[in-house]
Amino acid sequence: MQVKTILIAGSSGGLGQAIQDRFRAGGYDVIAVSRHGAGHTHVDLSDAHATAELFNGLDPSKPLAGVIHNAMQFHRSAFLETEPETFEQVWRSMTLTAVNVAQQAIPLLRTQGGGCLIFSGASGSLRAEPHFSAFSSAKFALRGLAQGLAREHGSEGIHVVHTILDGLIWSDKTQQRFSSAQQRRSMIPTDLAEVYWQLFHQPQSTWTQELDLRPQGGSY
Amino acid sequence: MQVKTILIAGSSGGLGQAIQDRFRAGGYDVIAVSRHGAGHTHVDLSDAHATAELFNGLDPSKPLAGVIHNAMQFHRSAFLETEPETFEQVWRSMTLTAVNVAQQAIPLLRTQGGGCLIFSGASGSLRAEPHFSAFSSAKFALRGLAQGLAREHGSEGIHVVHTILDGLIWSDKTQQRFSSAQQRRSMIPTDLAEVYWQLFHQPQSTWTQELDLRPQGGSY
Amino acid sequence: MQVKTILIAGSSGGLGQAIQDRFRAGGYDVIAVSRHGAGHTHVDLSDAHATAELFNGLDPSKPLAGVIHNAMQFHRSAFLETEPETFEQVWRSMTLTAVNVAQQAIPLLRTQGGGCLIFSGASGSLRAEPHFSAFSSAKFALRGLAQGLAREHGSEGIHVVHTILDGLIWSDKTQQRFSSAQQRRSMIPTDLAEVYWQLFHQPQSTWTQELDLRPQGGSY
Amino acid sequence: MQVKTILIAGSSGGLGQAIQDRFRAGGYDVIAVSRHGAGHTHVDLSDAHATAELFNGLDPSKPLAGVIHNAMQFHRSAFLETEPETFEQVWRSMTLTAVNVAQQAIPLLRTQGGGCLIFSGASGSLRAEPHFSAFSSAKFALRGLAQGLAREHGSEGIHVVHTILDGLIWSDKTQQRFSSAQQRRSMIPTDLAEVYWQLFHQPQSTWTQELDLRPQGGSY
Repeated sequence: MQVKTILIAGSSGGLGQAIQDRFRAGGYDVIAVSRHGAGHTHVDLSDAHATAELFNGLDPSKPLAGVIHNAMQFHRSAFLETEPETFEQVWRSMTLTAVNVAQQAIPLLRTQGGGCLIFSGASGSLRAEPHFSAFSSAKFALRGLAQGLAREHGSEGIHVVHTILDGLIWSDKTQQRFSSAQQRRSMIPTDLAEVYWQLFHQPQSTWTQELDLRPQGGSY
Repeated sequence: MQVKTILIAGSSGGLGQAIQDRFRAGGYDVIAVSRHGAGHTHVDLSDAHATAELFNGLDPSKPLAGVIHNAMQFHRSAFLETEPETFEQVWRSMTLTAVNVAQQAIPLLRTQGGGCLIFSGASGSLRAEPHFSAFSSAKFALRGLAQGLAREHGSEGIHVVHTILDGLIWSDKTQQRFSSAQQRRSMIPTDLAEVYWQLFHQPQSTWTQELDLRPQGGSY
Repeated sequence: MQVKTILIAGSSGGLGQAIQDRFRAGGYDVIAVSRHGAGHTHVDLSDAHATAELFNGLDPSKPLAGVIHNAMQFHRSAFLETEPETFEQVWRSMTLTAVNVAQQAIPLLRTQGGGCLIFSGASGSLRAEPHFSAFSSAKFALRGLAQGLAREHGSEGIHVVHTILDGLIWSDKTQQRFSSAQQRRSMIPTDLAEVYWQLFHQPQSTWTQELDLRPQGGSY
Repeated sequence: MQVKTILIAGSSGGLGQAIQDRFRAGGYDVIAVSRHGAGHTHVDLSDAHATAELFNGLDPSKPLAGVIHNAMQFHRSAFLETEPETFEQVWRSMTLTAVNVAQQAIPLLRTQGGGCLIFSGASGSLRAEPHFSAFSSAKFALRGLAQGLAREHGSEGIHVVHTILDGLIWSDKTQQRFSSAQQRRSMIPTDLAEVYWQLFHQPQSTWTQELDLRPQGGSY
């Protein structure tokens, strides 16, 4: 069987790594894109030209199956203390990267009869809380983009999914940042990766556009 | 390994049958409840006492793993031509049955450390269209119930899922009712059953409360 | 100018009284319907026949302008301690009364070229919280009904509004029930009545179907 | 009584003009900001420094009462034919302008005990349709911003409103752009302006955060 390629944008962190592992175990050729970190392809996906180059360089013998966009820039600050440049930068890193990746991936996937794009959202994609105006505004924007793409390109075989990750993802970083985090109240990266695997492979008769995910007993 | 029981309410029709088949293939003891039809346990789940009797009669050696509530009463009529009795009956058959089943299942599941309840919603659960006031009002009510149960009983290990089935489910009945229905624009029961299987077995670190499902290119 | 009639369903309590006062001051003939209380027309609006009788008895010389449906049955209890009869009764008092009133009002209003129906929702119409499953399920159902009616009868001149009253309404009863209630954190009935007046009189070029209302600084 | 100032951002077009007229008639000193057009203050509100200068130049003897942000850049194009620069530009003109204006207005309004910010959304703020990915993504972002500001600054007396303008606004431009537009199926600017006036003056006991507005019989 032909090996297929999956591109994972925002591949650092526990979830990015777990998704890579799951898809490699499932036989995919994984291209893990991040702005830094060993073992990643370093591309700034907020740059349309760099993104185009990345896709142009894909090995045509391993056709692209889809993209998982997981570029997350957690940002929390009082609105009046958030620089307009920060607003823009948060939007560029979470939303514009999704635009660029989708513009490269969709034409490729269309020529092969379809494929899947998964965009990772958060609690803030549905509810904007105090001190999260930049983050939530960008996550709302990403959700609108994903929804629009699902409606515009669904009939061409492009399956667009938006996940609402409503809770902490367990990792060393999480433990450092949130001292009160508990593993049994957090989402385990390998469990999330399994859901992404399932979504990515939904048959065309049953496509999910949006679903929420949270740990047992997570308040919401 | 101990055999577990799953109860499927509203088990007639293509989806009900496919869910039964999937869970039987997965090793469950399936109790298929419907008001009529060969091979089903006949109980009127809108009757609290009959529902209690059903659950009291479960074989304790095969502990209950959960319930899939799929009781659907499609109803379409102009609002001014819908009898108040019909409104009430649609509500009883789709919402009150869910109340009764949940009140019996949750205490049982709690004693075993948890379990899963899946309620099937529809496009009309999110958008009330003309001529669907009775149907949508009952489906909105079911969604509110499912969401409340998820929040009230989640920390006790009760995973409550609400699915939005946004499209036609392929079956003989569908073909008769909607002459324009096409299989490639419909949801295949066995594909849906697989999603229900996945949801039912989500690990406690990654629970979905709500997801939508529609065929490729379905307009929404 | 011809005097017009407005019917207020669920007219007891501070908000019901304030709406009555506002519309009387504005020149309307007000029919205040409640199941009890001095100065009210006593009709059980969950009874379709009694509701029909009420509307048949309206004075044709004062044509109906619309209905404000404010029938609220606050209900809070653990799901497992809520009798199925209570679930049904909460639904009947908040949702079925709305069905009955709308079925009588819409044909009358159509013959006059239009009119307005306002249904009062609550925080629980959008979010089902623990211990509010019966209340929220019925409020979700009311919202679905209102939305369906807006879509089905809008082009006939029937303006259907659903308000989300997201907070405490200040009254003697509120003070007794919630000892921590503060007037400056509550909604004042006369202020709400003014909003209802504005909504009721929106010109046909700018109709609101749904809006939320909460006191300054109310958390949500 | 002291004259107060209102700033209208995105003041060109029929709605901008009608809002100006309504507030002038109500006794306000109106500052109409637009990037071009006679009779407007010309400021590029996507430029934080230019926006700060504008606010610094306000006449302190006429304290600011609030801002109506109506900056709308209608944009419709196939996703794959939308330049990333266009995505960014649509976001800057509709969302970043709102950020800049809010960052200047909120500190001023706080010192005076409060004030009102109204942001104009559209149908695309809730539903992203095909060929509207850039527009909807920016409108989703604006909605998230408005919601976050409402929660973060509400208790300080800052009333933040987000309107969903779900339909065509009647104007010469509308007639030219949509040949099938009909006045009786469109929203009349003076009617909308009256709603904005009402929202701007809601007492602190009854604040609306979001409402939709559409012409009678508008499909949605």
